[in-house]
Amino acid sequence: MFPGERVPISSLSSSIDVKARREAMEKLRQKFLELLKKVLNGEEPKMIIPKRTLSNTIYDKERKLLLLGSETFERNFLDMREARKFMQTVLMASIIYEALVNNEYPTIRDLYYRGKHTIRYRDHRGRVEEENTWDEQRESDAVLRDIEVYVGLLREDMLILSKEKGKVVGDMRIRSGDDVIDLSKMGHGAYAIEPTPDLIEFIDVNAEFVLVVEKDAVFQQLHRAGFWKKYKAILVTSAGQPDRATRRFVRRLNEELGLPVYILTDADPYGWYIYSVFKIGSITLSYESERLATPKAKFLGVSMTDIFGDPETGKKPYLTEAERKNFIIKAKKTDIKRAQELMNYEWFKTPKWMKEIDLFLKKQSKLEIEALTGKGLRFLMDTYLPTKIETQDFID
Amino acid sequence: MFPGERVPISSLSSSIDVKARREAMEKLRQKFLELLKKVLNGEEPKMIIPKRTLSNTIYDKERKLLLLGSETFERNFLDMREARKFMQTVLMASIIYEALVNNEYPTIRDLYYRGKHTIRYRDHRGRVEEENTWDEQRESDAVLRDIEVYVGLLREDMLILSKEKGKVVGDMRIRSGDDVIDLSKMGHGAYAIEPTPDLIEFIDVNAEFVLVVEKDAVFQQLHRAGFWKKYKAILVTSAGQPDRATRRFVRRLNEELGLPVYILTDADPYGWYIYSVFKIGSITLSYESERLATPKAKFLGVSMTDIFGDPETGKKPYLTEAERKNFIIKAKKTDIKRAQELMNYEWFKTPKWMKEIDLFLKKQSKLEIEALTGKGLRFLMDTYLPTKIETQDFID
Repeated sequence: MFPGERVPISSLSSSIDVKARREAMEKLRQKFLELLKKVLNGEEPKMIIPKRTLSNTIYDKERKLLLLGSETFERNFLDMREARKFMQTVLMASIIYEALVNNEYPTIRDLYYRGKHTIRYRDHRGRVEEENTWDEQRESDAVLRDIEVYVGLLREDMLILSKEKGKVVGDMRIRSGDDVIDLSKMGHGAYAIEPTPDLIEFIDVNAEFVLVVEKDAVFQQLHRAGFWKKYKAILVTSAGQPDRATRRFVRRLNEELGLPVYILTDADPYGWYIYSVFKIGSITLSYESERLATPKAKFLGVSMTDIFGDPETGKKPYLTEAERKNFIIKAKKTDIKRAQELMNYEWFKTPKWMKEIDLFLKKQSKLEIEALTGKGLRFLMDTYLPTKIETQDFID
Repeated sequence: MFPGERVPISSLSSSIDVKARREAMEKLRQKFLELLKKVLNGEEPKMIIPKRTLSNTIYDKERKLLLLGSETFERNFLDMREARKFMQTVLMASIIYEALVNNEYPTIRDLYYRGKHTIRYRDHRGRVEEENTWDEQRESDAVLRDIEVYVGLLREDMLILSKEKGKVVGDMRIRSGDDVIDLSKMGHGAYAIEPTPDLIEFIDVNAEFVLVVEKDAVFQQLHRAGFWKKYKAILVTSAGQPDRATRRFVRRLNEELGLPVYILTDADPYGWYIYSVFKIGSITLSYESERLATPKAKFLGVSMTDIFGDPETGKKPYLTEAERKNFIIKAKKTDIKRAQELMNYEWFKTPKWMKEIDLFLKKQSKLEIEALTGKGLRFLMDTYLPTKIETQDFID
């Protein structure tokens, strides 16, 4: 099942990848060797895998993280109901292992294609039957997730790559692959974060906080106007819903460098959800949160009280009546529904978030970040953002 | 209407931007000064603007480009039917001019917000009426396009920014802003192209061709495995439909450095359209093609004859029968419809493209690039791509 190292590790790959590859191979081999030993000893071959169900997903209030609980399930080869899934898991593990050995960098789509074939066999009455290994990527993705939790390696650790949208600039040096990259020397462009951000080494940093901007276009504007230079920021964009690599990169900036992380999104439930994915993790993939989420991230804005002010605290709005009239977008039914859903999440049940969501439901209004740059980029850069940060006017 | 330079150009902006800003201001000022002079001389204030209609969009067979024809229209302030559009155009020009003066970097969304307000006026019977400058971004975008063709400046020349998906790596040094960037020292990450690629200076390059990959994940794989080092390529991804900056960047690589450009997409009408946008330009924005399109770009694959072979030329397929069975995706109705539409475009009316589209319609099959990496990344990198390039097996 597991071929030896037939192909020499190519000199074209970085030395970092060579090391990561060996570590992942070792872990995979060990875990599946246990299984093989069971067979050789005449024991039942079975895997004990943490459950990835909603009921086994726990919000840890202390750590402020979505985590997998302690429930597990058995995948037993000799159980007819489990045999197919068992075979799929072993198939996937062997494909990943081969890719590691052969110095490859598969994507999850590749893994699906590589494993997809039809098995012909004779049933107990001697009839020829056909069965597909898997039909849809949904199936192969679920098997991959089983392997991630079973072996205790994220896909990135196994050098499985994916498309990557995150970008960064700031006064910081990193080592990626065999290169040292100065993130303050990117000109008008930016550094596109690699799909395996755990392999990045932080060399040195000269910054006071991280600003994560939902929208790439706003990132471009702030970058170009020198926001990160003037305010000593590391500027990151997720370009919409954050992918895994951007989340992990931001988490590492917070955890390892101690930099506070502020998230800037549109003022709407979609923006709040982006914040929530950065901070807590996603519900369907809670096993990743432990490494990908940034529990200390703060929602900087745009908040409903930024738009309307807050009579309770005496906070004045950043928009005038006329600006509200011109800039506000009426919330859609789907926005309202989404807001009501968010109210049920444990981590939104704080006084500040309840006020935010209540105000949204009352006003049925949303606002884009661009409405603030519509007031002038200087307003966003030199008034709104510094004031929000200085007065600690964020939502936790 | 046009304020002077109230705010000093900030030291935070690059010197390149300072220069670009002055040039754009000068051009805008000159063009609208003409208008003002007409008013002062008692003449009718009117603009003569090239028509951006389909009938004035011409496919230039020689240059292989979609271009605007010579038809123009008049926008006359004193014509009641035109007065609103005239005012919108002047409003937009003044917003752009102010942004240039104030050292800003608006997006088209900002321009929409900045101009959006309600004008109250009394009609000829003395009644108070209200009129919005514009209601939707579609309206303000159309006005911006009028200004682009009227003044002869693309939005990027006026430092209007946008979100940007394109990435590049390769053995090449560029100057962007005030920095020199070595695109061969990006580690596992990549250089995210700036929204104003005309401001990039090419310093030196050591490459033989440009490979543009539709899919970011495939770009990541080829980059990581050292494709560009081994085959002396500049590797670019558009991450789906190419944006303006990626198109302009690729065009400059071709035109100024003389590098052949090969485009790699999925084998389906959506992929062909991506190729077509790179090569010819988009029909709705033909005035940009002159600067954004790369007429010499070649479609490298994945082609239908790569999948099925070609009995006429004796070309053997890259996929086995079993692989076709596993990897091919059945074409949807929308794919068929799209393919039939493409057949009507002048630039697809070549023998090779007709064969390609015919084969697609006959087999009703499509294929993703990932199906090739499903055969192994080494297959894509060391067999498929080099063979296709060496044997010049592309479609023009």
